Amino acid sequence: MPYVNIRITREGATKEQKGELIQGVTKLLNEVLGKNPKTTFVIIDEVDTDNWGIGGESVTELRKDRQ
Amino acid sequence: MPYVNIRITREGATKEQKGELIQGVTKLLNEVLGKNPKTTFVIIDEVDTDNWGIGGESVTELRKDRQ
Amino acid sequence: MPYVNIRITREGATKEQKGELIQGVTKLLNEVLGKNPKTTFVIIDEVDTDNWGIGGESVTELRKDRQ
Amino acid sequence: MPYVNIRITREGATKEQKGELIQGVTKLLNEVLGKNPKTTFVIIDEVDTDNWGIGGESVTELRKDRQ
Amino acid sequence: MPYVNIRITREGATKEQKGELIQGVTKLLNEVLGKNPKTTFVIIDEVDTDNWGIGGESVTELRKDRQ
Amino acid sequence: MPYVNIRITREGATKEQKGELIQGVTKLLNEVLGKNPKTTFVIIDEVDTDNWGIGGESVTELRKDRQ
Repeated sequence: MPYVNIRITREGATKEQKGELIQGVTKLLNEVLGKNPKTTFVIIDEVDTDNWGIGGESVTELRKDRQ
Repeated sequence: MPYVNIRITREGATKEQKGELIQGVTKLLNEVLGKNPKTTFVIIDEVDTDNWGIGGESVTELRKDRQ
Repeated sequence: MPYVNIRITREGATKEQKGELIQGVTKLLNEVLGKNPKTTFVIIDEVDTDNWGIGGESVTELRKDRQ
Repeated sequence: MPYVNIRITREGATKEQKGELIQGVTKLLNEVLGKNPKTTFVIIDEVDTDNWGIGGESVTELRKDRQ
Repeated sequence: MPYVNIRITREGATKEQKGELIQGVTKLLNEVLGKNPKTTFVIIDEVDTDNWGIGGESVTELRKDRQ
Repeated sequence: MPYVNIRITREGATKEQKGELIQGVTKLLNEVLGKNPKTTFVIIDEVDTDNWGIGGESVTELRKDRQ
């Protein structure tokens, strides 16, 4: 009965891509640890780039620097 | 000083229902462990059904299957 | 299919008390939002008092101040 | 490679203030524990006041009481 | 720069199995969303069976029932 | 009433260093957003290096590579 929380920046992941993440993680936990898919939860949080920092800077700023 | 995080799918929980969850969890922690309600935090996260997976499938897909 | 994470300081909660929390929260989510207990997860994290701060001070220090 | 999650009520924190939090936390972890800023993640979650409870009451209600 | 938190019950996952989870999730995020493995964090929390509830009962109790 | 969760690898942070993190984060939230220190929670999770992955590898393996 694993619980998996995936946090990514909100930059346009589609419903299909999110479905692939859910399916892939669930399969992985089944293959590696024998976990039952029926009680495997996967929750994806999409976070605004203003609210995600790395290297002391928000991802919004980081994207600008790279342009 | 407990911290409680309740994650549910975003499917129309009302302000009143969320108030009942906050009140109920706070009371429970007071009754079972003697925790002070004044420093009990309850945070409710409502998650889009596209972003919540169970059984390798998103809740959005799951709801369709059941129709 | 709610997910609930309860974080408390590690100060001797018994197996029975933790069982009461699990049961109580699951019941509450069923009563307030009609959530299915079978797919309700409750995870309790017990945190060392050195690692929990409130008011800018660890709970370890806070307990000393109150003696 | 620390991961820091800051959860605050959604009450108008600006992009600049969020940038200051990201910068300040990253600097603190570098100064206190020598952590590399390049692999320090800071994620800020802004939570609706209806969804945040303290003292058994939502912050929305709490703000009304104080008026 | 995704952050992934995998929570499982503490029931003997080996270092090798945990390595496979880390590798598998990182690869998945790269394949599905093009995320850079260098800034993909995976954190595994192993939770005591007394502290994990499902169906209103701790996993410790659940395991007994099934014997 | 912010809630801050700091996750670091378990590699010998002292009680004093953890106290400095608690104090520093609480002060930062007060200075930047005017948050009341009395209701600011800071929780530090120390995670085993086997359980923390970056770049598809556990920190345990990463430390070996760098020797």
